[in-house]
Amino acid sequence: MHTTSVNDYLRQHIRTVSDWPAPGVQFRDITPLLQDPKVFRVLIDAFVHRYMDADKRPDVVAGLDARGFILGAVIAYELNVGFVPIRKKGKLPFTTVEETYELEYGSATVELHTDAVKPGDKVLLIDDLIATGGTMMAGKKLIEKLGATVMEGAAIVDLPELGGSELLRTTGKLPLFTLVDFAGH
Amino acid sequence: MHTTSVNDYLRQHIRTVSDWPAPGVQFRDITPLLQDPKVFRVLIDAFVHRYMDADKRPDVVAGLDARGFILGAVIAYELNVGFVPIRKKGKLPFTTVEETYELEYGSATVELHTDAVKPGDKVLLIDDLIATGGTMMAGKKLIEKLGATVMEGAAIVDLPELGGSELLRTTGKLPLFTLVDFAGH
Repeated sequence: MHTTSVNDYLRQHIRTVSDWPAPGVQFRDITPLLQDPKVFRVLIDAFVHRYMDADKRPDVVAGLDARGFILGAVIAYELNVGFVPIRKKGKLPFTTVEETYELEYGSATVELHTDAVKPGDKVLLIDDLIATGGTMMAGKKLIEKLGATVMEGAAIVDLPELGGSELLRTTGKLPLFTLVDFAGH
Repeated sequence: MHTTSVNDYLRQHIRTVSDWPAPGVQFRDITPLLQDPKVFRVLIDAFVHRYMDADKRPDVVAGLDARGFILGAVIAYELNVGFVPIRKKGKLPFTTVEETYELEYGSATVELHTDAVKPGDKVLLIDDLIATGGTMMAGKKLIEKLGATVMEGAAIVDLPELGGSELLRTTGKLPLFTLVDFAGH
């Protein structure tokens, strides 16, 4: 399979749910990708193939709560590196750093254990989808607070019209890797 | 490594956090198991070795929100079977079945997509820890509502004094596989 057909193959298995979670939203549901063993393998391997070379290999994979755990854990296992969860506030028991970011209505806070990454670590940051980019930007800041660097942010889906990937690349200076983009949202 | 020493090796990497999330609770934090590449691999492989034989292989792995996603996704990938998430209410976009269960204060509801498993599927149900057993029991009921069967419930940690594993085995008629148990809680 060539890269183009991998992307198309994955796109065909993303389910669009209209008017969820709110009227007018076209929600991109990635659960069908996980459910079929072959599609799941093609999905994970698309990330593993990118990061397995010595010069692209992260020291740690960080997954964003909660769909980022699904992808991030498998990629970390396959790369033989550790996995660390970035969680919504109140879920991590040990000492943490935290970062609050704005949502359309209100705000959200994410946390990372202070011993999750070490100064100098190159971290791969994983989520399922990039929309406004707020969660991934907050995750990057958490990792940097601990003296580590995010080498790349990766997700299955990009929704470019929401501006998150643009914001992360420019303001965030964060290289991104995504497999499928959807115009409209 | 023999089974006994795998269990002891894993136990040494579980961090106990006192008085979290409430005074008097000894919280068993599994994040250090994920963070060290070797420990993570030994952990996952302990499950994979159990379920890789043809007569023990599940058709689907279901992971409980959210730490069950970390383990369940990797185990599913390694077994070449699909992964499905059982989520807290309001997180799954497609049509779902739901199950409400009692907590110490109040109640909680979990959901599963109606196409996540098929009638007759043998499902492996995964979480990080068995405490009162409420979440795992609810997960089992969801899977059975769709005509599938839970072949086994699996977790890293059992807290037997909280009675969950006993309840699941007797009332729930659910075989269980856990790697480390802690007396006291």
